Amino acid sequence: MLVREMMVMVDANKGKILLSVTGFNPKKWHGLLSPEREVVLEPAGETDPSITHAVVWYHPAGQLAKLPNLKAIFSIGAGVDHIMTDPDLPDVPIVRVVAENLTQHMVEYVVWRVLDHHRQASHYRKRQGESVWQGIEQRAAPDVTVGIMGMGTLGGAVAKALTAIGFKVNGWSRSQKTFEGVKTYSGQGELDSFLGKTDILVVLLPLTPQTRGIINYDLLSKLRKEHGGPVLINAGRGKLQSDTDILRALGDGTLREASLDVFEQEPLPASSPLWKHPKVFITPHAAAESDPNHLAPLMLAQMDKIERGETPDNIVDRSAGY
Amino acid sequence: MLVREMMVMVDANKGKILLSVTGFNPKKWHGLLSPEREVVLEPAGETDPSITHAVVWYHPAGQLAKLPNLKAIFSIGAGVDHIMTDPDLPDVPIVRVVAENLTQHMVEYVVWRVLDHHRQASHYRKRQGESVWQGIEQRAAPDVTVGIMGMGTLGGAVAKALTAIGFKVNGWSRSQKTFEGVKTYSGQGELDSFLGKTDILVVLLPLTPQTRGIINYDLLSKLRKEHGGPVLINAGRGKLQSDTDILRALGDGTLREASLDVFEQEPLPASSPLWKHPKVFITPHAAAESDPNHLAPLMLAQMDKIERGETPDNIVDRSAGY
Repeated sequence: MLVREMMVMVDANKGKILLSVTGFNPKKWHGLLSPEREVVLEPAGETDPSITHAVVWYHPAGQLAKLPNLKAIFSIGAGVDHIMTDPDLPDVPIVRVVAENLTQHMVEYVVWRVLDHHRQASHYRKRQGESVWQGIEQRAAPDVTVGIMGMGTLGGAVAKALTAIGFKVNGWSRSQKTFEGVKTYSGQGELDSFLGKTDILVVLLPLTPQTRGIINYDLLSKLRKEHGGPVLINAGRGKLQSDTDILRALGDGTLREASLDVFEQEPLPASSPLWKHPKVFITPHAAAESDPNHLAPLMLAQMDKIERGETPDNIVDRSAGY
Repeated sequence: MLVREMMVMVDANKGKILLSVTGFNPKKWHGLLSPEREVVLEPAGETDPSITHAVVWYHPAGQLAKLPNLKAIFSIGAGVDHIMTDPDLPDVPIVRVVAENLTQHMVEYVVWRVLDHHRQASHYRKRQGESVWQGIEQRAAPDVTVGIMGMGTLGGAVAKALTAIGFKVNGWSRSQKTFEGVKTYSGQGELDSFLGKTDILVVLLPLTPQTRGIINYDLLSKLRKEHGGPVLINAGRGKLQSDTDILRALGDGTLREASLDVFEQEPLPASSPLWKHPKVFITPHAAAESDPNHLAPLMLAQMDKIERGETPDNIVDRSAGY
């Protein structure tokens, strides 16, 4: 009965949506998009004429190339590098959907991970497993410096939240920026100085040719080595880091612990030693997942706009790559 | 050589300190107090005349009763109920040492625990143990209400930090209070209404005859039952809660999870089923441990003040019990 009522709402004049996602269950997205447009998970052949919009997350390369009526590609998530890796991308607009609550989610994730390392969760979980009542000396946040690499919208919001909780916060970015209560560093020339004052490193950089692989052993070995060693939190992009170098740094004590939301290869292969590493906390690229409830209506409105012949908001600049 | 230099600083005219603590290693405190005064861990007999000050945490009942020259009792920690339980307490001032950074530590602890439950850490730890890449639907903080019972200095600071991160925050206290950005409830008459809007309950009440045992099954069953059920965080006092009722509530789904820093009996006995409970996170009364580095100098200054015949700051009102 419910299904029949929803079907009635689908406008037969509106083109179909191809929902092509890898690594998570598309059910939720399907349910949110389908009341307004027909949604398919695969095209009916590589030249399926019924598809006018693609909503994608790591779609199979080449899947979109020959769809004759495709008008736009929509990214689930803030980054679009998962789209750019397809060498056979058709020449239609790539639309980024900007959701306010993505910043909210990222602030929560980073503050959560910073506090979990700062408050020595691994000590308490170990002791709890042994039924042992034993504290550990605890520094206060004002005695700890969090260094944020990447001071865009997300980095700025994270810095503000961490400052409110009492941490000292430094920021590093490509070009000089100013934030209240944050000491900022910029460019290659100030990177080592920034790293040498950092106890907990938070990575929120975009992935570009300049930042690819920047989180390597050499960089990690320049972090401040006090109070048991530094901590790495990467919530930016996996290809910013070398998984192998992180494992080496954890193994020889260069790093105390790490929280990783992103990885060189995603989904992280079941064979990766990161999964079982006692000093690593893993989330499956979930730090600031776009909330489908917020994003789906924005996407549907953009699709209507395109079909009216208008230009959608937030078209990606393909030459810059973001 | 270092020891000899430190011995020289001890003033022979100053009375001895009895450092009487249970449940943790007194070494750190000993090291911080001993450069200025001689410190002993036990009196030389129950009428030891050399002791003029006692620094205590759950001292053995009756230990202080007959010390003829005892001038004051100093509490390690914000609460003094661990002193009041001694029926043979001598009639000398009980001094609470107020450390700014205690509030800082409590804010860190509560925000940490709220975020750990909110961001579904137990899901990710389980999946990591199985090497499985699998997200889970995540609400944003503005869709979650944290209810704080006890809106004193600590409760107010915690409310402010949680609001800054984006949570909705309600507060409940014995008498009506006002905090910016916080909806406040007061007294028995508004308790059920407060509980019915609470997703994550944070307990920061003082222990008094009125609050003893308040966190029982009946109260927990009145919390809001949405999105997998409510969460309990007790960082107040163990005797505010019934350990048995918490276990019952976790067992039948009345509670989703709990973070407990305090327990009816401390140290928590190794036989307690709370230790191995998969939905419980335990810390050994360590949420806002007084930092000895901050407290010891304040205590030593108070001792000097007493010996000069002046009245120390922050004397406990024995009739109120705090």
